[in-house]
Amino acid sequence: MTPEEISAHQARYEGEVARQWAQGPSDGAHDLGHLRRVWRAANLIAMDEENVDNRVLLAACFFHDLVNVPKDSVLRRSASRLSAEAACTFLREDGFDPTKVHLVAHAIEAHSFSAGIAAETIEAKILQDADRLEALGAIGIARMFHVAGSMGGGLFDPADPMAQHRPLDDRQFALDHIQTKLQHLAAKMHTATGRAMANERTDWMLSFRTRLLAEIK
Amino acid sequence: MTPEEISAHQARYEGEVARQWAQGPSDGAHDLGHLRRVWRAANLIAMDEENVDNRVLLAACFFHDLVNVPKDSVLRRSASRLSAEAACTFLREDGFDPTKVHLVAHAIEAHSFSAGIAAETIEAKILQDADRLEALGAIGIARMFHVAGSMGGGLFDPADPMAQHRPLDDRQFALDHIQTKLQHLAAKMHTATGRAMANERTDWMLSFRTRLLAEIK
Repeated sequence: MTPEEISAHQARYEGEVARQWAQGPSDGAHDLGHLRRVWRAANLIAMDEENVDNRVLLAACFFHDLVNVPKDSVLRRSASRLSAEAACTFLREDGFDPTKVHLVAHAIEAHSFSAGIAAETIEAKILQDADRLEALGAIGIARMFHVAGSMGGGLFDPADPMAQHRPLDDRQFALDHIQTKLQHLAAKMHTATGRAMANERTDWMLSFRTRLLAEIK
Repeated sequence: MTPEEISAHQARYEGEVARQWAQGPSDGAHDLGHLRRVWRAANLIAMDEENVDNRVLLAACFFHDLVNVPKDSVLRRSASRLSAEAACTFLREDGFDPTKVHLVAHAIEAHSFSAGIAAETIEAKILQDADRLEALGAIGIARMFHVAGSMGGGLFDPADPMAQHRPLDDRQFALDHIQTKLQHLAAKMHTATGRAMANERTDWMLSFRTRLLAEIK
């Protein structure tokens, strides 16, 4: 694709996302900025990979959160499947290569950890890596506490912020989320570039945690 | 006061705070941990100051958020006055020196920026400095995004995160709060120790902002 073609597809995809999001519940952590950052990171990662279909990757990046299900909803596990279905419906109407729509669907379905579907194509692996980067680094910290605020959870356990004498509980204490999930993400990255970026962001995130613990000790 | 006396007063004050908070709306950013950290920072600051009444400071620290008013309520500006009144009622019953209750009330009333009351006593100055430290550093960043999540605000403006081409709006974009308020707090500190701690935390906070902007650019 030429840069002009990418821009044209992106503008149309963003328009569709905005239209569908306007009909459902919104949350401050998912917005067009998130989609653009995932697409940018996916591009960086794709440069070091072979046989990447950029049209598939572009559509997967912009539609991976098309159906927004609140984190505390029982439908949460179905969000990526619902997003894949809604994306396919749009793409078929939009003239997307019908022999490749299923590749977009697979990347979207597999991107979410909670869906329990292994990423089997390079586009699915790149999308998952790029999306996971948003959970790490300074943006990951910002989103982690924002989600806690929106769901009524606390910052950390003032009596035991490191969870040395209690089970981890990241619903109740946002800071626990680093230990339950975020610090393990880098090891699950599929691509070399994604893993390098994840390692750097994980190191910074752990330094944030160390600093926070020192401030509140 | 001996350490044992401090512990005894603190336990009684915490019990009263927990009792009153259980009756009203709660938020994840204000909890007993916040009160204890403010008291700890106040103690650090007080070591370098003269003529500090520790009994007044202890009561002011633990009761400064006694009446919790949501940030988006029209009563928000009255929260510190309501907290001061509730604290006085309790302290008179609790055998607090009746000639010094007004000193606790002044420290509580003056601690909040939005109340518009100048801190005139050393205890009021120390409480305000100690409370402001909680808005800076890693704890300040955590609270800033948590508040945004709980109030339905966004993380930042994806189109213009540095607010170069729009007015600052920290209701809509949490990151703007650094520019509208947090980066100016250190210059408003009353005490030398408080200012030194605030400067260090402000420097770290600005490095967080620089990193976040680089990640999302």
